[in-house]
Amino acid sequence: MEIGGSSESQTQNETKKGKSKIPRKPKESLLKQKSPAEFFAENKNIAGFDNPGKSLYTTVRELVENSLDSAESISELPVVEITIEEIGKSKFNSMIGLVDRERVDAQLYDDYETAKAREKRLAKEARAQEMQAKNAALGKKVKEQSSTKGMKGRGEASFYRVTCKDNGKGMPHDDIPNMFGRVLSGTKYGLKQTRGKFGLGAKMALIWSKMSTGLPIEISSSMKAQSYISFCRLDIDIHRNIPHIHLHEKRNNDDWWHGAEIQVVIEGNWTTYRSKILHYMRQMAVITPYAQFLFRFISDAPDKNVTIQFARRTDVMPPVPLETKHHPSSVDLLLIKRLIAETSKQNLLQFLQHEFVNIGKSLAERLIGELGPEFSPKMVVKSLSDQQIVRINQLFRQAKFDDPTGDCLSPAGEYNLHLGIIKELHPDMVATYSGSAQVFEGHPFIVEAGVSVGGKDVKQGLNIFRFANRIPLLFEQGADVVTRTALKRINWGSYKINQTQDRIGVFVSVVSTKNPPLKGLARSILEMILQR
Amino acid sequence: MEIGGSSESQTQNETKKGKSKIPRKPKESLLKQKSPAEFFAENKNIAGFDNPGKSLYTTVRELVENSLDSAESISELPVVEITIEEIGKSKFNSMIGLVDRERVDAQLYDDYETAKAREKRLAKEARAQEMQAKNAALGKKVKEQSSTKGMKGRGEASFYRVTCKDNGKGMPHDDIPNMFGRVLSGTKYGLKQTRGKFGLGAKMALIWSKMSTGLPIEISSSMKAQSYISFCRLDIDIHRNIPHIHLHEKRNNDDWWHGAEIQVVIEGNWTTYRSKILHYMRQMAVITPYAQFLFRFISDAPDKNVTIQFARRTDVMPPVPLETKHHPSSVDLLLIKRLIAETSKQNLLQFLQHEFVNIGKSLAERLIGELGPEFSPKMVVKSLSDQQIVRINQLFRQAKFDDPTGDCLSPAGEYNLHLGIIKELHPDMVATYSGSAQVFEGHPFIVEAGVSVGGKDVKQGLNIFRFANRIPLLFEQGADVVTRTALKRINWGSYKINQTQDRIGVFVSVVSTKNPPLKGLARSILEMILQR
Repeated sequence: MEIGGSSESQTQNETKKGKSKIPRKPKESLLKQKSPAEFFAENKNIAGFDNPGKSLYTTVRELVENSLDSAESISELPVVEITIEEIGKSKFNSMIGLVDRERVDAQLYDDYETAKAREKRLAKEARAQEMQAKNAALGKKVKEQSSTKGMKGRGEASFYRVTCKDNGKGMPHDDIPNMFGRVLSGTKYGLKQTRGKFGLGAKMALIWSKMSTGLPIEISSSMKAQSYISFCRLDIDIHRNIPHIHLHEKRNNDDWWHGAEIQVVIEGNWTTYRSKILHYMRQMAVITPYAQFLFRFISDAPDKNVTIQFARRTDVMPPVPLETKHHPSSVDLLLIKRLIAETSKQNLLQFLQHEFVNIGKSLAERLIGELGPEFSPKMVVKSLSDQQIVRINQLFRQAKFDDPTGDCLSPAGEYNLHLGIIKELHPDMVATYSGSAQVFEGHPFIVEAGVSVGGKDVKQGLNIFRFANRIPLLFEQGADVVTRTALKRINWGSYKINQTQDRIGVFVSVVSTKNPPLKGLARSILEMILQR
Repeated sequence: MEIGGSSESQTQNETKKGKSKIPRKPKESLLKQKSPAEFFAENKNIAGFDNPGKSLYTTVRELVENSLDSAESISELPVVEITIEEIGKSKFNSMIGLVDRERVDAQLYDDYETAKAREKRLAKEARAQEMQAKNAALGKKVKEQSSTKGMKGRGEASFYRVTCKDNGKGMPHDDIPNMFGRVLSGTKYGLKQTRGKFGLGAKMALIWSKMSTGLPIEISSSMKAQSYISFCRLDIDIHRNIPHIHLHEKRNNDDWWHGAEIQVVIEGNWTTYRSKILHYMRQMAVITPYAQFLFRFISDAPDKNVTIQFARRTDVMPPVPLETKHHPSSVDLLLIKRLIAETSKQNLLQFLQHEFVNIGKSLAERLIGELGPEFSPKMVVKSLSDQQIVRINQLFRQAKFDDPTGDCLSPAGEYNLHLGIIKELHPDMVATYSGSAQVFEGHPFIVEAGVSVGGKDVKQGLNIFRFANRIPLLFEQGADVVTRTALKRINWGSYKINQTQDRIGVFVSVVSTKNPPLKGLARSILEMILQR
């Protein structure tokens, strides 16, 4: 019984009244059980793998963000190299040991055109050109009719090898397989500001490679002062949610390199996501001016190649986000139970004092007194009943505690935000602001903001840059609180800024132990900050 | 080895070159493994349980949608009763067997005010009133300063008992515990149009009750012509992801009732989500005019009570969505592997012919010929190598197949959409449109749309109603393709409709075997449809 007492006696009554006994061991059910890996393969849009183009984008960002986290965790100024290499079909086939086949039965293919269809198409194109010439003569602009061709099939796939190399912490040799090949395993358990959304990270890239190319992921990694480099090639057994190791070995590390290099081959779409990926890199360079990024796109057609270096402009790094204890205002029943299960403390007094922030000894004693006569400072914390835990939770919700400090947070810093904006946008004018820590439901958060006018590669009107825990947010713009506030609630004219003519940059960065931090952030706070 | 051949020999070379052997059995890792239930408890926002208010809303919709699915699956005109009962703190405490406590140490509480603070507040309030009076005299409107009080703590919790009763199919007695108490188990495995997003449904409501109240869920259910009613009270062991059964018994079913009644007690927030919940019910009534809904909110303050009956207006029900086979253009490597693992067919010819839509015998033979010399119609399908599966996938992507038909889909129907709009909005004018099936990446979809002008309880300007697989979408409005198209790309003036003055309803419903169906739907298609 989870909830004992009264409901227990109720249960007994109902059992007596019932027609049959409780079946203690139900028969084997016909329901199917999915593994977490299967769930995320089937619902890959949850993690940003909606389609090949977005999957390429998300793979890049997951790898880049892991690299930054890793370098920052050992206070190393990050150096991140990211390469996207286009792989033609022939090359891809030779990689997997498949012989290229010439088309034999031409009429089988989607792009096959009968002689009649060809005639029809040419006639149609001629008519369209004629129309266009006429309209051009009349000075009319005609929008090209959008083709729905792409809607029917998916067309031929494009493949890319994505490689990300960093100078970070590296990974323990024996942990590597599970860190990549087992969904829902990880180390991000404590409460702290993290870049990752759900800790799925590179695992989703591996699942996507499994779905689209079948090729394994390759990991090279070494930790500081480690004499060898761990090399691992693996994929994932989706059904059992376990890593499937092809090769896992130690290699020479003559240069005492530390960091990680991850390589994955996936289906993608550079054409449709090129600009999103470059935007992402640029926004990351704005919020991380102490990192050095080298971004490369390599294709068979050299004129399509891209190489962009985002240079480091400062050695000042934000502090490493610290793990913190939970604030009593932010916990729920499950969390209190988990803390009780995991605590090393014996009695209730010690538990309250050591497992939460802002409960000192005297406050703990007063709280225990207020809980009621069946509580005492010396009672064994692991013996608390479910009802007693509910009582503690209720008092936590009503009692007054000091706000958590923002000490555990790692904001970009006004200096860095200012520098990042100047470095990447070269505006005529820039103003930044860095707030002090505030609190939302027991979670501290810090908002930093900037406004720029003019600059290089900045379009007319509002250019919104949103950051959450120091990663750029590029999706769902328009509905978000930053965009709405900047568009509708700021009177730009009163600052002598023309909202449609000027090239305005609006930068808002929020960091918090709550993830995602922008959700639930009240508009009023944002307005207040943007209007300073 | 998942990818054999060339990469296998590569592996051996590298093993020889490597410094040490492959550790076949790595040491026990220090990484932690989460259960799926723990993952969703920690990331409950994925499933729409962002905060207490939204959790109440999502609980209601999950239960209502399950009820509709259930009744429709046995072609029963749905009758759904949903009740939200506010539970005061004293009542809640007595439910869990907790004694109410009077406050003793008043200064412990968040709402405690020192004499000095009280003086200050009163003085401030007096000043504010004076200001307001002055401004009112001058005819100025002053927005009240928004309080940030709610931002700090979470305040006292509000509890609700949510009950949903239907006349649906019911559930097999022995399956009930796993259907509620085990995340990622379920029956929704085939390919068909489904209402649910991830099949999490009522499980998330149970996880949320576990986090917020600790109270179990109660299920009564009977299947057609079943002489007993199954009753089950259970909660979930989050860590092990298994149901924890309090009571599971058979009771008399003298009235030969069939259907299900689910009851769960959760923290919620009726005040902030009242209008969302009522909007949801109304939109559901529009798209489901053949169902009868009774919605009730019951509180201790009778003047806050709500009772709304949404009456049935037709007996015409859309056809039950049929399970269909996959279209060859829509599959990926993992899916082909799963179909191979699950097929009862022996050889490749039979497999292609029977496990996909739109591959007849002669096409299957031509495809096998085109695959290359190492393929033959009689080859054992379960013996296909990874490379051969990649080859099949490649040909599926390039070959031409007939489009899937929309026969498996269950659109609302133009008659029902028209009726639903008239019944709930009473507009002066309404026009509807129902498209024929189209195809997106091998998935058939049907778009239906309507426009209304005027009516009851319709605000001035655009009122957007979006439906995906016949459920209302209320969130992320503004960024979505329907709203953007209606706002920016439709020239309302040319239809003699005033976009800001008239009360316009815009209704767009998409059904598809792809879930979520609106993602990826091209704007051009929508424009085309709205502009007819």
